[in-house]
Amino acid sequence: MPFATIAELSKYDGQTLTLRGWLYNRRSSGKIQFLQVRDGSGIVQAVLVLKEVGEEMFRRVEAIPQESSITVTGSVRADARSPGGYELGASDVQLVAAAQPYPIALQAHGVGFLMEQRHLWLRSRKPHATLRVRAEVVRAVRDFLDGRGFVLVDAPILTPAACEGTTTLFGLDYFDEGKAFLSQSGQLYMEAGAMAFGKVYCFGPTFRAEKSKTRRHLTEFWMVEPEIAYGTLDDVMSLAEEFISFIVQRVLERRKEELKILERDTKPLEKIQPPFPKLSYDDAVKILNETRAAQNPPIPPFGGGDFGAPDETTLSLRHEKPVMVHRYPISVKAFYMKRDPAAPDKALCVDVLAPEGVGEIIGGGQREDDLALLEGRIAEHQLPKEAFEWYLDLRRYGSVPHAGFGLGIERTVAWICGTEHVRECIPFPRMMYRIYP
Amino acid sequence: MPFATIAELSKYDGQTLTLRGWLYNRRSSGKIQFLQVRDGSGIVQAVLVLKEVGEEMFRRVEAIPQESSITVTGSVRADARSPGGYELGASDVQLVAAAQPYPIALQAHGVGFLMEQRHLWLRSRKPHATLRVRAEVVRAVRDFLDGRGFVLVDAPILTPAACEGTTTLFGLDYFDEGKAFLSQSGQLYMEAGAMAFGKVYCFGPTFRAEKSKTRRHLTEFWMVEPEIAYGTLDDVMSLAEEFISFIVQRVLERRKEELKILERDTKPLEKIQPPFPKLSYDDAVKILNETRAAQNPPIPPFGGGDFGAPDETTLSLRHEKPVMVHRYPISVKAFYMKRDPAAPDKALCVDVLAPEGVGEIIGGGQREDDLALLEGRIAEHQLPKEAFEWYLDLRRYGSVPHAGFGLGIERTVAWICGTEHVRECIPFPRMMYRIYP
Repeated sequence: MPFATIAELSKYDGQTLTLRGWLYNRRSSGKIQFLQVRDGSGIVQAVLVLKEVGEEMFRRVEAIPQESSITVTGSVRADARSPGGYELGASDVQLVAAAQPYPIALQAHGVGFLMEQRHLWLRSRKPHATLRVRAEVVRAVRDFLDGRGFVLVDAPILTPAACEGTTTLFGLDYFDEGKAFLSQSGQLYMEAGAMAFGKVYCFGPTFRAEKSKTRRHLTEFWMVEPEIAYGTLDDVMSLAEEFISFIVQRVLERRKEELKILERDTKPLEKIQPPFPKLSYDDAVKILNETRAAQNPPIPPFGGGDFGAPDETTLSLRHEKPVMVHRYPISVKAFYMKRDPAAPDKALCVDVLAPEGVGEIIGGGQREDDLALLEGRIAEHQLPKEAFEWYLDLRRYGSVPHAGFGLGIERTVAWICGTEHVRECIPFPRMMYRIYP
Repeated sequence: MPFATIAELSKYDGQTLTLRGWLYNRRSSGKIQFLQVRDGSGIVQAVLVLKEVGEEMFRRVEAIPQESSITVTGSVRADARSPGGYELGASDVQLVAAAQPYPIALQAHGVGFLMEQRHLWLRSRKPHATLRVRAEVVRAVRDFLDGRGFVLVDAPILTPAACEGTTTLFGLDYFDEGKAFLSQSGQLYMEAGAMAFGKVYCFGPTFRAEKSKTRRHLTEFWMVEPEIAYGTLDDVMSLAEEFISFIVQRVLERRKEELKILERDTKPLEKIQPPFPKLSYDDAVKILNETRAAQNPPIPPFGGGDFGAPDETTLSLRHEKPVMVHRYPISVKAFYMKRDPAAPDKALCVDVLAPEGVGEIIGGGQREDDLALLEGRIAEHQLPKEAFEWYLDLRRYGSVPHAGFGLGIERTVAWICGTEHVRECIPFPRMMYRIYP
């Protein structure tokens, strides 16, 4: 008798087999038990009939607690009402290990409690579906970039210096070498990579020690960062819209079931195709100010600088597709951003704001490739020049225009799944007040 | 005129196009210059003939320093002597940015110096080839596991407790939550994942603060860790040999050019197919002791415990394929290892030693799935039980036999590439004395 997984039941129509899994839920009429059995690949209903299996087995199975590990032997039969299209006519159920009273009931709990039980909560339908979408997003990211000639060049996590200031860095002692910091971005390293490989990406965890408790923030999250030698702002804006569209369409194609479990309306996602709407920072400010003035009472006009979360929401809700805001003031952006030759107070940068109020999922742009200008920016930002000598070398030895961006994985998953909070979009979230389990 | 990459030159035979890249090297006869141009996707020879381009351009190009960024326009022509099969008859060369005198000459430098220049050294032929093999290994890992129904469940890097003792951990302050540690292994989290998804893996950077300066050690390295619910030691031993064979054959198939650049003899790699030789720990000790006794003067017999690097080398050099050493004494292994019911002083574990003296590339085995036995082991190892409550929950709620392993990526790349030191097998290595660039 073969062991099979629930995902592959359709291959065994009419045959008898054994599943190895867990008891997810049970309904009983007294004469028939409907067991919801999960094995990680899916959930199937196993039907146990008193008359067929006899009193002894029926009562024994009735006593098995939720989430106990069990094996179920039975015959596979098509059933149009079942989610996977099949159910199991059970002839034997064996207990592997009885569970203690399970802390997570199938009805609602508070998220705080569920996060404390994250190691178990992963078994429930919605977290399970969300993380399968996450795995698909990761796969899509790599398929897209590998398929277009980008070379994976993993950036280091332990770094000697900060990419964008030290206030939000996790620091630690590194042997006799002094302080090391957990990377906030692999970008600077990707610039070195692009000069060696042309088109590169890194994809790993990044860290921000932000004292922030919003629904958009994690202290540890995954980010993919492509970088292109000889690339311009326009190049990466095109790349970004193709990239995002590819990811969304891939999930729609391969994770239909999961999106259904998550009750995600997929119509807005079907529209995610290039081109995306583009908006200069100045035009975005105009829109925000019109929106503010139209309030009753009117809100004072936008003071300049970077957008806050409510501004991003205002902008993103105006469009069905992600909106690309480009050319922010150079004064609010990082030292490595290249100035727009046509407007020297602006940076050749772009943020991509996801629709439905999710906020920024991409930040990127063209990098300063002139040695003297970059040295000036490092001085202006009062950064320690010696830490950036290697980075300046990239301008000393064959500098070229180059550009790239970073896409935050968990925010992208939150958008695609329609999940309110990014903490549900990573297996074991890390936040200001959460480092367990 | 289209821009093209060197990798795709064969598509443009006979056509005129422009390449964007860097000047890797140059030979000149006074009347002809042979420019080695690289663009990250490959290296091509561009031939510049004085008579064809004229005195002015010829002299200008002659003055361009090594590693300057240049664009080269010319016609693509087949040339059997060229590595890629094509060369470029150059009609125009434009300087993008002149390089300062380049610190890396094409002849030999010491590795210490080169590592200090790692951001530039990536451009040289051998590091470039090694890291392309690394990217292929990563791709192969994901293709293998994704293709067999494993779900990616990324493990957290910031963890509240140690997996295998705290002496080799990097610690840091985590807001008001006390100390956090950088993960040494995602395994415990993968056990939770396996109970939810059946078959899972994590694949990310892991950290060991080892004061070790051997050629096999990095403080930051990438590891892939599959874990299987209802899996046994035998299951993961089979999986490991299929997995390693798949990776090696994939690299042989897709990275021929790179292995040639690395002067790797590929014959030993062609033999890497299941089954692999298997050896119990006790038999391995017998072999080591016979080897020791045969020395002149004889070396005292093996004292028990874990093998050291020289022992691993002795064992691995006896075989053409990786050798799988199983069932080590439980006393030398981590607290979560399951005892062998047939020999309670042994653990159901396996180490895979790569051939050619590279040492351990896989460690894994079956996990203790009995709550009381696991609690006993945690007490024996004097670990703080409260930190492992969530891990113990996996035995309280539907415990099942389960097993998995971890494969170290950089050691695997070192073996496949025939590279002596793992530090050359990661883009930006981190070692006890190295955190720059």
